[in-house]
Amino acid sequence: MSDTDQYIQPVVWHENRLRLLDQRLLPEQTVYLDYTECPPVAGAIQDMVVRGAPAIGITAAYAVVLSALTHNGKAAAHEMILDDMALLQRSRPTAVNLAWALARMKALLDEPAPVSVDSLLTEANRIHEEERQANLRMAEFGTALLSDNAGVLTHCNTGSLATAGSGTALGVIRHAYRQQKIRRIYATETRPWLQGSRLTAWELAQHSIPVAMLCDSAAAQLMQHGQVSHVIVGADRIAANGDVANKIGTYALAVAAQRHAVKFIVVAPVSTLDPKTPQGSDIPVEQRDSGEILSQEFGEGVTAWNPVFDITPAGLITAIVTERGVIQAPDSRKIAEML
Amino acid sequence: MSDTDQYIQPVVWHENRLRLLDQRLLPEQTVYLDYTECPPVAGAIQDMVVRGAPAIGITAAYAVVLSALTHNGKAAAHEMILDDMALLQRSRPTAVNLAWALARMKALLDEPAPVSVDSLLTEANRIHEEERQANLRMAEFGTALLSDNAGVLTHCNTGSLATAGSGTALGVIRHAYRQQKIRRIYATETRPWLQGSRLTAWELAQHSIPVAMLCDSAAAQLMQHGQVSHVIVGADRIAANGDVANKIGTYALAVAAQRHAVKFIVVAPVSTLDPKTPQGSDIPVEQRDSGEILSQEFGEGVTAWNPVFDITPAGLITAIVTERGVIQAPDSRKIAEML
Repeated sequence: MSDTDQYIQPVVWHENRLRLLDQRLLPEQTVYLDYTECPPVAGAIQDMVVRGAPAIGITAAYAVVLSALTHNGKAAAHEMILDDMALLQRSRPTAVNLAWALARMKALLDEPAPVSVDSLLTEANRIHEEERQANLRMAEFGTALLSDNAGVLTHCNTGSLATAGSGTALGVIRHAYRQQKIRRIYATETRPWLQGSRLTAWELAQHSIPVAMLCDSAAAQLMQHGQVSHVIVGADRIAANGDVANKIGTYALAVAAQRHAVKFIVVAPVSTLDPKTPQGSDIPVEQRDSGEILSQEFGEGVTAWNPVFDITPAGLITAIVTERGVIQAPDSRKIAEML
Repeated sequence: MSDTDQYIQPVVWHENRLRLLDQRLLPEQTVYLDYTECPPVAGAIQDMVVRGAPAIGITAAYAVVLSALTHNGKAAAHEMILDDMALLQRSRPTAVNLAWALARMKALLDEPAPVSVDSLLTEANRIHEEERQANLRMAEFGTALLSDNAGVLTHCNTGSLATAGSGTALGVIRHAYRQQKIRRIYATETRPWLQGSRLTAWELAQHSIPVAMLCDSAAAQLMQHGQVSHVIVGADRIAANGDVANKIGTYALAVAAQRHAVKFIVVAPVSTLDPKTPQGSDIPVEQRDSGEILSQEFGEGVTAWNPVFDITPAGLITAIVTERGVIQAPDSRKIAEML
């Protein structure tokens, strides 16, 4: 398929530099930061200059190329690059795409021949291009799942900014909207980082696609009013049994969706499936700073519980859409078969 | 019972003036605004200088006294006061305590004798004092409902700021905490107005009671982790069948509570019960400005759906705590009996 929309490019490789769109400043400012070494890229992932599981994976792959450019020719180049990769691996714990992309890059380093920057760059570009193609296929598979006149609710940001392609969940939504299968798009603001009201609203506005934003806590009421036929979200990691780690708030949406017989669809590339993690409770969930929730210091008695992700059990999920096809009512057997 | 805690006073009558603590500026600034006429008080209710169903009712009662002070002695005094009351009535549509307090004030105006400012002030003071006493009784009834080592989650602000007494849900929580029945208090930040992270955090800090704040969307995950035994919330209106209108997000909490067998307790004075409204879907739900959700203008395609309240069906409610006692598994018959 083709997609004539121009994508937003959050991750750009250009003349031996990695350029990242600083997503902390959107939508007010569109600023690209340039990186020529690997460790600052690990910091950029940690600090959420770039976020979104697939985009983090692609960024890490290019960061390995930067590492090779820095260290190539040195006696200990191989070890230095592995050290940089370990640093990247530690930058964020939940999304498995990061580990997946690094594993692909490491496979090249394990060759007996000396490290070739060209081969690493070719692999990073390939990872990026494969994710782009995967997004397009997921958009088609996901659109086919929707009934006509769908009322679609999404959470967080899963568009170009999160994937460096057309998007996972938001890629489906945009494609289905162009195919006139969607009556109305709703998006949560997505506290605490406001990926919805800052990033998803901005992306859809760029594409002239109308959206109604709502507080995360209002989504259940919207379903009670009969306005939602499908919830469509992305994923940061999918365990072997189909449990899904995704942005905090996803589980609450899935619980409400079940009560209202709303279909709950997860859109994620195969790189998000993690057969090594048996179930959701085994997925490490990152806790971020309390300052994201506490607007001011109230003294030591007032603390914050700020998990970035939550776990939605497979039993609440109608379907997982991947670039290889759709897994209806996901379970361990069906996921193993897809892999 | 007695409560030795000093209350925060959001509504103060002092020398023929009504003083309101400007809750829009908390917790950064503690500023009282003085009112000597009624219409600006209606504006203050509309603009959320004062909020919380019981506090709005008390404020409206005092505003009627201001109206009488302004118009007393004029030929058309009676009509002018009724006009002011109509203005107050329109200031916010969902909380029924406003209408309830105005009905009590109007009963005095319907006397054949000329309007007496003193009698109106006596009635406003009585409404205020009755709500204070009701809060203390609800705190005892509610505390008795809790099991030991309770993990309590609350939503919005239902303390002194919302009630001009010790609080409804937060009054129960504070009392139960002092009685050492609560292991841990959790409070949602409560988007979009952040009554939780601005007001509830501030109130609890004033009383040196520890609390962990979380995003509204994280509450379901907290329940999945087994940290919550009771959700305790207030109400803006309770329909004749036990359906509850309360701050947006309450319904989502009730749905998640049911899934996790968490007790869901609503604490509200009898003035919040509305026998004239048969069921929740008959309660008018206020929509507020989209600017509370949209951080910036994205163009006309990006809109906001911003209902301030939602409706929790009686079937999800474990108990309603009033100053007259507890209604377990509320329904039309039990509510009619209490009234």
